[in-house]
Amino acid sequence: MQPRIVEVRENVLKKNDLLARSLRARFREAGTSVLSLVSSPGAGKTTLLERTLRELGLRHRVAALVGDLATDRDAQRLARAGAPVRQITTGTVCHLEAQMVADALDGWDLTALDFLFVENVGNLVCPSSYDLGEDLRVVLLSVTEGEDKPLKYPTIYNSADLALVTKIDLAEAAGFDREEARRNVEDVRPGLPMIECSARTGQGLDAWYRRLEDLRASRRGV
Amino acid sequence: MQPRIVEVRENVLKKNDLLARSLRARFREAGTSVLSLVSSPGAGKTTLLERTLRELGLRHRVAALVGDLATDRDAQRLARAGAPVRQITTGTVCHLEAQMVADALDGWDLTALDFLFVENVGNLVCPSSYDLGEDLRVVLLSVTEGEDKPLKYPTIYNSADLALVTKIDLAEAAGFDREEARRNVEDVRPGLPMIECSARTGQGLDAWYRRLEDLRASRRGV
Repeated sequence: MQPRIVEVRENVLKKNDLLARSLRARFREAGTSVLSLVSSPGAGKTTLLERTLRELGLRHRVAALVGDLATDRDAQRLARAGAPVRQITTGTVCHLEAQMVADALDGWDLTALDFLFVENVGNLVCPSSYDLGEDLRVVLLSVTEGEDKPLKYPTIYNSADLALVTKIDLAEAAGFDREEARRNVEDVRPGLPMIECSARTGQGLDAWYRRLEDLRASRRGV
Repeated sequence: MQPRIVEVRENVLKKNDLLARSLRARFREAGTSVLSLVSSPGAGKTTLLERTLRELGLRHRVAALVGDLATDRDAQRLARAGAPVRQITTGTVCHLEAQMVADALDGWDLTALDFLFVENVGNLVCPSSYDLGEDLRVVLLSVTEGEDKPLKYPTIYNSADLALVTKIDLAEAAGFDREEARRNVEDVRPGLPMIECSARTGQGLDAWYRRLEDLRASRRGV
């Protein structure tokens, strides 16, 4: 790495951090709980979100922003849940930045939202460096990816507040070793809460929704 | 994106292209066929490579370079196949660059190698921009990732010469729609050859090995 690139990168990150801080203040003032989802491509972010918007949407006012390089397929899929959804198309940029989130919120009344979900681009590397002003960063590890991913992509686990082990209905078919996965998460991020779930069968989603309700209660100072 | 970042990025890419070109000439002169593997984290690059090194290694002189942010787990796994393997640890860099490949080759006699495999960092975005001097870029799409990945990450499919649909033994459990996957690949990269396979059961690997033998034969001018 040439020093010049490092310097430019540091400036970008610093600018992002400042903007994320102001976004966080804005969310807090509006009373909106904000979660971001990060994972490999195909770990199940959109499927989880689709079900979450539908089910959590029965009790709360929910919305989503979804990031992708290209296409608005995810936004179309999520719109079926009936919640407001906006697509952020990043072009060749491999992660979301606070500015993209701020731009995508343009014209939305945040006070009308209890929960805002931000689905990042599928990427286990770069999103870890960009604060988006979220309350909770959720990393998804699907059982088909291999138990070693936390060791190989430690930064994203270090920046996360919760790990969801997804596609748990495929655990047996994939030969998933849950104890090894847990050990590997503990190695890079001791104490990170983990929830095993399947957005297809619904298994484990009760624990996920409880975590969301807890977040909401703490926001309201209950 | 500020103009200054774009400019720095263009310089980096240009420098990479020049180095990749000289790597390619070096591989050609040595008579080494070079393949790179790109995919999401957990699509099965290392498992495929482990089996390929072992089985192809019965008939050819094979070696591998493996890229990861952290740990030398992949190199350890691959070393079990008995072939020479070197790990490239990228730190926070989310892709391999030609310079990293050149550095990792230091001291290796390329004329003693028929095949060199380069496993990129698990990432569907950034590796697409960096030529590594390979003869063939292979993109892996595992059946558990969802058929829409080619549409959502078009750049990597555009830069690939072959697509391997991996974990085909899980196709039914995952509800994989092979026709949709094929249509989506055709949409972004018409004519891209696809091979369905499973490194666990061995299904489809004969076609993969045939492709490798063809590459070798064309290299020798057969």
